[in-house]
Amino acid sequence: MDKIEKIQRWLAEKNRDIAFISDPKTIQYLSGFYSDPNERVLLLVIFKNKAPFLFGPALETEAIKESGWSDPVYGYLDHEAPWKLIGDQIRARETDDTYFAIEKSNLSVAWLESAQQEFPSADFSTDLTPMINQMRLIKDQGEIEKLKVAGKWADFAFKTCFEAVRVGRPESRVAAEMSYALMKSGIMELSFPALIQSAAHAAEPHGATSDKRIENNALVLFDLGTVWDGYISDATRTIAVGKPNEKSLDIYKVCLEAQLAAQEAAKPGITAAELDKVARDIISKAGYGDYFNHRLGHGMGMSEHEFPSIMSGNDLVLQPGMCFSIEPGIYIPNVAGVRIEDCVHITEDGNEAFTHTTKELRYFG
Amino acid sequence: MDKIEKIQRWLAEKNRDIAFISDPKTIQYLSGFYSDPNERVLLLVIFKNKAPFLFGPALETEAIKESGWSDPVYGYLDHEAPWKLIGDQIRARETDDTYFAIEKSNLSVAWLESAQQEFPSADFSTDLTPMINQMRLIKDQGEIEKLKVAGKWADFAFKTCFEAVRVGRPESRVAAEMSYALMKSGIMELSFPALIQSAAHAAEPHGATSDKRIENNALVLFDLGTVWDGYISDATRTIAVGKPNEKSLDIYKVCLEAQLAAQEAAKPGITAAELDKVARDIISKAGYGDYFNHRLGHGMGMSEHEFPSIMSGNDLVLQPGMCFSIEPGIYIPNVAGVRIEDCVHITEDGNEAFTHTTKELRYFG
Repeated sequence: MDKIEKIQRWLAEKNRDIAFISDPKTIQYLSGFYSDPNERVLLLVIFKNKAPFLFGPALETEAIKESGWSDPVYGYLDHEAPWKLIGDQIRARETDDTYFAIEKSNLSVAWLESAQQEFPSADFSTDLTPMINQMRLIKDQGEIEKLKVAGKWADFAFKTCFEAVRVGRPESRVAAEMSYALMKSGIMELSFPALIQSAAHAAEPHGATSDKRIENNALVLFDLGTVWDGYISDATRTIAVGKPNEKSLDIYKVCLEAQLAAQEAAKPGITAAELDKVARDIISKAGYGDYFNHRLGHGMGMSEHEFPSIMSGNDLVLQPGMCFSIEPGIYIPNVAGVRIEDCVHITEDGNEAFTHTTKELRYFG
Repeated sequence: MDKIEKIQRWLAEKNRDIAFISDPKTIQYLSGFYSDPNERVLLLVIFKNKAPFLFGPALETEAIKESGWSDPVYGYLDHEAPWKLIGDQIRARETDDTYFAIEKSNLSVAWLESAQQEFPSADFSTDLTPMINQMRLIKDQGEIEKLKVAGKWADFAFKTCFEAVRVGRPESRVAAEMSYALMKSGIMELSFPALIQSAAHAAEPHGATSDKRIENNALVLFDLGTVWDGYISDATRTIAVGKPNEKSLDIYKVCLEAQLAAQEAAKPGITAAELDKVARDIISKAGYGDYFNHRLGHGMGMSEHEFPSIMSGNDLVLQPGMCFSIEPGIYIPNVAGVRIEDCVHITEDGNEAFTHTTKELRYFG
């Protein structure tokens, strides 16, 4: 059964008539076509008992057809009213149009109001988001293969970064070398702007690559990822340049122990919260608990913000096919920051990582 | 009066109590702090008669403070319930909390429902989006200066592209050279993935840079932009490699005439629709009207999707400080595509472009 048929069966089971898919990533997941329409409308309309259609900007319709989408596609011009045209297409099908299911985590209030104007007596209270998240939670073999390729390119990116590291070179220059090497190899898209942070700069877990120069006798953190056929990689390594101080080496040792223990523990049956605790306990026992101020990991696949969330309070039991990051971090303000991250997929009896660059502390310079 | 005070005055005038600012770009515009929080909550809460506060992920609070934001900041951890904490902060202020204004074009239905749970008897029907769009529509001198710098870097990017063009080289390789040159100069962020499209590939106006090799005797289209301190550039040039066929040269000539005429006509007093028509009439008269299938331009500033939209049906009268693209295009499937684009700001008696790379057809190779 294909993915759209699953939605149709769900609609029928829940006595809902029509699903509005508005999240571009969900549209890609279900249709194979991806585009970020920005403020323009791109909508996949799925009926419980009729063929779906895609609706989008006129200048995208050819690309939609070329992507392999074989059901109807309708385009609109910039001066036309998209929701009116969507309404017309639905009404032309003379089908039930009373109960709509929407992606509440994505659909804006403005677009919901536009849809309500077209169907004033309809009910839009059904949320599709949990059902879509549940579908996307378990990756199939085809998805895992794409994640593996994206992971290989992340390993390649680490290699180019490590080769480009020089004391005194701006962090941004290392990012330039990495990006250039990837693009020359045909990898045009990163899953997010790479983070390259030296010494105390790495203690800002959401900081950005800057013009700060790489210091001698300090750690350097690299958090990066690529995109392969719509699927991403995301991994972090921290290396030593020269001889970092004792504190830096100690937090590296603790962080690595936590990462390895959690990766060892990730298997079917353990909960997300328990896995978070495996790493957090090690870091807390070493006295750095306050410096690990984020969850252990996030789900990933088509983006780095999927489910499951590996954190306290999430009692979800891990199952084969779930994909997520294991990324403990220790950030001591004005001193140093360490994060070590692999993304993995849960297998029948354990897990397998998508990236394989060594996690033993490597020394450069 | 600063921008947040303008919102406060607006709230007071409209008898509204609290504004929820959820669009990260609007938060940047009002507060100076930018972050894309993805699925996490980042919210600027503005009261009609009290100091505002920023609420976001705990791992961003330091960065918010460092950005110069001097009003309160509250962070939440991944396992905490953000909307409950936001509600607590509002209730702690013992202020009016009945009438909320929201950014309907940005706020998701899910977040609106979370806010409604915190304030079950409150009214969330007021849309802030038009008021914000109106504020952002007219750029001040400081914003114009940033747009000029971003424009200079786009001119630099064109230069690197033209130098990198070779017959037989993949489009993606030219993009790699451009990106590398920018990053080595410290420009880490493009406003969108650059489009480099050769020959018939350029007839797909929303296509992407590919591994297709640059053809001899054909046109090549470059659409690119950079980011400078939160403000973007966006420009398009089309060049000749070898000797393009007559049809290609003819659509270039017509497109250039349309672009120059529209840029000449852009001044205070003309409407957006009239300006669109200046270019469209020239292209239609030459017989290519059906191949110009998008609006003449879009507003720009912090993103390339702002107001005013330069299109049929928009009777907005242009005024000094408005910033937008003028980008006619002619796309003949399986033959060639041309687009020529400058972004401009309207001045007291005309307009000024942010990019200055020549638009006369240049020949390479």
